[in-house]
Amino acid sequence: MADTIFGKIISGHIPSFKLYEDEKVLAFLDINPLSRGHALLIPKEPAETLDKLSDESAAALGRVMPRLCRAVIAATGVSEYNVLENNGAGAHQEIKHVHFHIIPKPNPTAGLGIGWPARPVDHAEAGKLAEAIRTALSR
Amino acid sequence: MADTIFGKIISGHIPSFKLYEDEKVLAFLDINPLSRGHALLIPKEPAETLDKLSDESAAALGRVMPRLCRAVIAATGVSEYNVLENNGAGAHQEIKHVHFHIIPKPNPTAGLGIGWPARPVDHAEAGKLAEAIRTALSR
Repeated sequence: MADTIFGKIISGHIPSFKLYEDEKVLAFLDINPLSRGHALLIPKEPAETLDKLSDESAAALGRVMPRLCRAVIAATGVSEYNVLENNGAGAHQEIKHVHFHIIPKPNPTAGLGIGWPARPVDHAEAGKLAEAIRTALSR
Repeated sequence: MADTIFGKIISGHIPSFKLYEDEKVLAFLDINPLSRGHALLIPKEPAETLDKLSDESAAALGRVMPRLCRAVIAATGVSEYNVLENNGAGAHQEIKHVHFHIIPKPNPTAGLGIGWPARPVDHAEAGKLAEAIRTALSR
């Protein structure tokens, strides 16, 4: 995997507004924020997408999220927020290194914009699909 | 905390298209999907928002994500996807129980719609904000 800007931030070759660091993860402010306090949480393991990340790094990301969210809330005074992780250019991923966005939502026009074209599920099809996903999980 | 529809799914009082279950987490298909394979991953711990969840439950959610994402990719054939977790009604949270959406992005018009009103950071302000978040983390 080619080194990304996040790899260079991890190695210290590019500076960042660092928020948190431990053996497996790093958090820092997004340099092009959607709202004040927009933070990024990344694994040090250089996986391009979440499906390629080790269980251990993914668990370490999860473990720090509640603490990091509380700290962003405390520092910004904004209690509502979105956590977003994009995989693939078509899904709005720009940097090819797993990153979770923590994006405060101070008002309807700031922060993450969400489009939600939901449709009721087809129950027969969903039953078959759930079985296919369970089968894939058991491999 | 009042019981939610997710609490009732965990207890088995409401059926679901179950995908995965262990001691701490449960995954099932969203009944109003944004795209085929739209899955939900929730902690059994009844926290309303991510900042109120225990580190242990959050780590358990993180740990299963790579496997669950691989299974959704395998079953749908769609390799691009978004992972989203909303906190607060103003941030599009509907059910008051932490839930991570895994949403396949098969094409530009299906799946999650994303609005991204980013602006370059004010470096002086960001330095102060990062310090405030680090201070909150160290409390």
